[in-house]
Amino acid sequence: MRPSGRQTDQLRAITIERQFTIHAEGSVLVSFGNTKVICTASVESGVPRFIKGKGKGWVTAEYGMLPRSTGTRNQREAARGKQTGRTVEIGRLIGRSLRAALDMDLLGENTIVLDCDVIQADGGTRTASITGAFVALSDAINKMLADGTLKKNPIKHAIAAVSVGIWQDTPVLDLDYAEDSTAETDLNVVMTAQGGFIEVQGTAEGEPFTPEQLSAMLALAAKGVSELCGLQQAALAQ
Amino acid sequence: MRPSGRQTDQLRAITIERQFTIHAEGSVLVSFGNTKVICTASVESGVPRFIKGKGKGWVTAEYGMLPRSTGTRNQREAARGKQTGRTVEIGRLIGRSLRAALDMDLLGENTIVLDCDVIQADGGTRTASITGAFVALSDAINKMLADGTLKKNPIKHAIAAVSVGIWQDTPVLDLDYAEDSTAETDLNVVMTAQGGFIEVQGTAEGEPFTPEQLSAMLALAAKGVSELCGLQQAALAQ
Amino acid sequence: MRPSGRQTDQLRAITIERQFTIHAEGSVLVSFGNTKVICTASVESGVPRFIKGKGKGWVTAEYGMLPRSTGTRNQREAARGKQTGRTVEIGRLIGRSLRAALDMDLLGENTIVLDCDVIQADGGTRTASITGAFVALSDAINKMLADGTLKKNPIKHAIAAVSVGIWQDTPVLDLDYAEDSTAETDLNVVMTAQGGFIEVQGTAEGEPFTPEQLSAMLALAAKGVSELCGLQQAALAQ
Amino acid sequence: MRPSGRQTDQLRAITIERQFTIHAEGSVLVSFGNTKVICTASVESGVPRFIKGKGKGWVTAEYGMLPRSTGTRNQREAARGKQTGRTVEIGRLIGRSLRAALDMDLLGENTIVLDCDVIQADGGTRTASITGAFVALSDAINKMLADGTLKKNPIKHAIAAVSVGIWQDTPVLDLDYAEDSTAETDLNVVMTAQGGFIEVQGTAEGEPFTPEQLSAMLALAAKGVSELCGLQQAALAQ
Amino acid sequence: MRPSGRQTDQLRAITIERQFTIHAEGSVLVSFGNTKVICTASVESGVPRFIKGKGKGWVTAEYGMLPRSTGTRNQREAARGKQTGRTVEIGRLIGRSLRAALDMDLLGENTIVLDCDVIQADGGTRTASITGAFVALSDAINKMLADGTLKKNPIKHAIAAVSVGIWQDTPVLDLDYAEDSTAETDLNVVMTAQGGFIEVQGTAEGEPFTPEQLSAMLALAAKGVSELCGLQQAALAQ
Amino acid sequence: MRPSGRQTDQLRAITIERQFTIHAEGSVLVSFGNTKVICTASVESGVPRFIKGKGKGWVTAEYGMLPRSTGTRNQREAARGKQTGRTVEIGRLIGRSLRAALDMDLLGENTIVLDCDVIQADGGTRTASITGAFVALSDAINKMLADGTLKKNPIKHAIAAVSVGIWQDTPVLDLDYAEDSTAETDLNVVMTAQGGFIEVQGTAEGEPFTPEQLSAMLALAAKGVSELCGLQQAALAQ
Repeated sequence: MRPSGRQTDQLRAITIERQFTIHAEGSVLVSFGNTKVICTASVESGVPRFIKGKGKGWVTAEYGMLPRSTGTRNQREAARGKQTGRTVEIGRLIGRSLRAALDMDLLGENTIVLDCDVIQADGGTRTASITGAFVALSDAINKMLADGTLKKNPIKHAIAAVSVGIWQDTPVLDLDYAEDSTAETDLNVVMTAQGGFIEVQGTAEGEPFTPEQLSAMLALAAKGVSELCGLQQAALAQ
Repeated sequence: MRPSGRQTDQLRAITIERQFTIHAEGSVLVSFGNTKVICTASVESGVPRFIKGKGKGWVTAEYGMLPRSTGTRNQREAARGKQTGRTVEIGRLIGRSLRAALDMDLLGENTIVLDCDVIQADGGTRTASITGAFVALSDAINKMLADGTLKKNPIKHAIAAVSVGIWQDTPVLDLDYAEDSTAETDLNVVMTAQGGFIEVQGTAEGEPFTPEQLSAMLALAAKGVSELCGLQQAALAQ
Repeated sequence: MRPSGRQTDQLRAITIERQFTIHAEGSVLVSFGNTKVICTASVESGVPRFIKGKGKGWVTAEYGMLPRSTGTRNQREAARGKQTGRTVEIGRLIGRSLRAALDMDLLGENTIVLDCDVIQADGGTRTASITGAFVALSDAINKMLADGTLKKNPIKHAIAAVSVGIWQDTPVLDLDYAEDSTAETDLNVVMTAQGGFIEVQGTAEGEPFTPEQLSAMLALAAKGVSELCGLQQAALAQ
Repeated sequence: MRPSGRQTDQLRAITIERQFTIHAEGSVLVSFGNTKVICTASVESGVPRFIKGKGKGWVTAEYGMLPRSTGTRNQREAARGKQTGRTVEIGRLIGRSLRAALDMDLLGENTIVLDCDVIQADGGTRTASITGAFVALSDAINKMLADGTLKKNPIKHAIAAVSVGIWQDTPVLDLDYAEDSTAETDLNVVMTAQGGFIEVQGTAEGEPFTPEQLSAMLALAAKGVSELCGLQQAALAQ
Repeated sequence: MRPSGRQTDQLRAITIERQFTIHAEGSVLVSFGNTKVICTASVESGVPRFIKGKGKGWVTAEYGMLPRSTGTRNQREAARGKQTGRTVEIGRLIGRSLRAALDMDLLGENTIVLDCDVIQADGGTRTASITGAFVALSDAINKMLADGTLKKNPIKHAIAAVSVGIWQDTPVLDLDYAEDSTAETDLNVVMTAQGGFIEVQGTAEGEPFTPEQLSAMLALAAKGVSELCGLQQAALAQ
Repeated sequence: MRPSGRQTDQLRAITIERQFTIHAEGSVLVSFGNTKVICTASVESGVPRFIKGKGKGWVTAEYGMLPRSTGTRNQREAARGKQTGRTVEIGRLIGRSLRAALDMDLLGENTIVLDCDVIQADGGTRTASITGAFVALSDAINKMLADGTLKKNPIKHAIAAVSVGIWQDTPVLDLDYAEDSTAETDLNVVMTAQGGFIEVQGTAEGEPFTPEQLSAMLALAAKGVSELCGLQQAALAQ
């Protein structure tokens, strides 16, 4: 029995609320159970220097946690003057994942910045961020199509992300904090709606994991991402 | 006629939502119209070095804006490695204001950290922050009383804050962004529910203001704070 | 009886020494009793990016304290790699105050940087800084008029600043450190020579202050600023 | 045909030179073809605060590249005052991987710091770093056993790492820079000598990769790590 | 003929004003012609960690220039968040030089911090700083002797510093900015009153200098330091 | 008898290995006994802003130590976010010294960056860096001549550097760590192959040094640099 009482292959309650704030071109509040993340997509004309003049676009992402999104307060990174390694690493993962969703030639020399700010954390903040950021990105793209900035939709495929792990020798889907902190292995998987892999990141926290365990976890992830992509589409259809 | 269509002495729609997130001892989402701020109060045992051993408590505050809480995206301060002068100044104002609400001897050697994070900005973020932070602080104090950390309530008086200004030669209450950006004078006032002044900060953006204008603005502020204190009490009574 | 032995409405001995150093376009050593600040005004051609191309000028200010300007040595901010919140806040106040003295259209696309460095502190360093900086600014403006950089004097009105406070229930003018550190309320007021308010910043350190106390303090401030503006004029006339 | 002329399952020429420098408890120059990394292991008594008093040890790692280890010079991170996101992320990966090799209870309250400094880069610097760091770690552990600091060997299993990728639709082992920069997918795999997974990190640079491609890459990685562990043992046996 | 009209072996007008500010244990305004530096000595009980428990004292120094001490304004290092290499290097030189003046065993576990802040620069700021700092240090030591903190005077010998250089093929003493900026060689010499060398730092800006030129410069420096030590003694005797 | 067993005027075993790494235009591993430094020269087109448009070139240098190049591990400066004063000072010395070797007019608007990274330290790292950097610089210059970037060789004279000191009252050449840490005086000398002085930096660690001791040390330095320049030429001739 999982601490959360869920089936091994069961996602937490997922909600995706669009137009959560008014200023951003895309603004989503995504919840994976008690994990809640505000994901905004900001459209900026122009691209960073290193790709200027190639007619291509760029997507980048930043991640943050409000100081008291967690059980005990974390020092505010802006006050400390430095992001932690974990923060930087997750921001890079989100950016890389979302870039894989777009055809940069069709985006033209525009930049989309994704900001994922965790307001309440209960495990899986990076996978919730990626899943929510795709919806915010879609909203921003749709605005660019509507106002004529873009002629053709640059989205190649929907993407979503979920964590899987080995908890008490059993592969389980979408770990919450209680499960995650006692899991032996933690694997974050970013996939397309069609089942292609964008990113796979797994770490043995305790014992090394076997090829069989990896296969079982990847199968769970595929199921989870497929459901998440369905929820993304439903949200975008509203 | 104000851009917002409000009377000169009329507040925006104010909402105060308690228990907005689950981890913090006090967690409030405060809205002054389209300005929305998450205010959390975190209780920590012990006090900073400079008041250690005096049996007194401490209250401090930090302020931040999500990068896309505004019309155009602001650089993330954590990524930039430095808070702006404005951010630091507002954090100091919030802390100073809330310290004035408490009897530090009754708080004992405990620290309460107030985090005010703007998720949507439309003018008056600092006054919304102070008003919301007082409710979060009250919830945290009540928890400390309930669990026996505190014997006696250290709150001396309720406090709230509101901005007033001279807009087209007329004193107006609670400026939104459209009003604030064209106002000649901007005055932020922190007061107690009993009408005492905690902090007065006014700046002539255009022409110097006269003693008469100052008096008129202070009267509006007193009216606004009185209403805000009523709304705080109503929220705390639920 | 005030610790300083002064009347409640009496300024400290004020001196304003022009051409204190040789390089700056304006250079003033201002003393408010034992508080001594070097204020320089540096003229730079061009303006910051955010106002470029509008034909307007800009005034900005920075504040600092020598490490041993105080009773115990403070860490050097340059060595620490970060200005304190207080330093940043005072620099912003000085800049805002002096900007209010000028017609930016008449200044043209020039920037004047005011540096206020406290070499000896005894309370009221920010008000001394503003008062001295106005004289340094005037000298710089006069040089620009003399060398033809400016055609018309952009100074709209003289400004000066003074602190007032409630000390042992009595409103007093121009607090020194001994008075300031035990005052219940501390109010910094920036005014024009004509008695208009530029900036009002008051904080209840102990009990909230009443509207009556505020009025009394503002009256004292008006008297003090009026005297300071007389001393500025006398210094500029030499 | 691979740019390097190698078979798809062929490692580059690997050399592992122990005692490369004289001061560190373990010091290794590892070469994966033209990629050369100095890996040192430094033993320090005591552990970081967050695990103090539990009788457990700690392993941490830092990564760096000499400014001109690459084709064009990179800014020196120490001069710039900040590590890049990539540097931080790789340091964290190395530390996490090597921690998995040890039984922290047997290490006692000691810390081993692994420094991996790339002096020449040609792709695969993070996998070379992990592979070399394990040998440096082993030498340090052997010194601690020899001098009585440790009673029992805390090494649970040898670990090594290698990159695999999809290059022109073909899975290939141990990509050099020319291959890596044109590969569609890049997967870094850390494994034990017994074939257990410690860490799997794969990213689709171009098209998403399929479960079949993932399986093929993982099989190549297993072959590569097995050979690398053989070379580590041979080096340690000298 | 030197730009300054001085003889080749002639110092600028030197003044040493003690008790320039009121708070520091030693406070000196030193002028070498138009170069003016405030040097303060602050006594702190205790020593840095690396010499704790050895019964020895410590002397350290920091150097700074007010932003407009120079012909064009320099960015404020505190605002920039970083000291320049030049600033750090001069601070280290001053500290090293003054440490050489004291018997650290006699100083006991006390630290003296020397702050040298240039308020007006015209060449030779580092040598003026060292010369003035010695007088500030002496005043601080005398206070410590007077109040019983020290039993025995730890000063081993007076020290002073002067620059010498090759200007138009001629060795000259105490270069001002006009001379310094066109000199071929610049040598800073710190010596004791007895003619021993504490520090010699010379750089060929243009052509390499010869052993003969070095000898001639060192002789000029010895003459200059001897005169400066006389002026220090005269100032301390007042 | 010196700790190293060397004659008072004897250098350590010196080796200069060119083409140590493959990417840089000049890459040298220099050893002064157990002190080992990688010196690379990187050619960049263009010059820093402050000399742009004058047709002149620029040479700059940076210095670093691998964290475990020393007996106990030093904190990594990139992780700490700040270079130490010592690091900055040595980088400035190396740059200044190498600039003296070149005719900047002949270099044209090109910049050469010298990176000196100590992989093993045993005293004299700055003098080894300068000596090795000259060879790396020469290789880079030769490449620029060969590929037509330069028409005429800008090298005015070879330079090398060595430390000398007073150890147990005796002047000795090229101090290793054991000698350096107990020496009374430490003097670093940069000279041309023709015996001209480029830089002289001496510090009395214990007692002041006399003019006679200075002469004796300078004579030793001249002998040492002459031998080092011979070794540089031999290396460049291979």
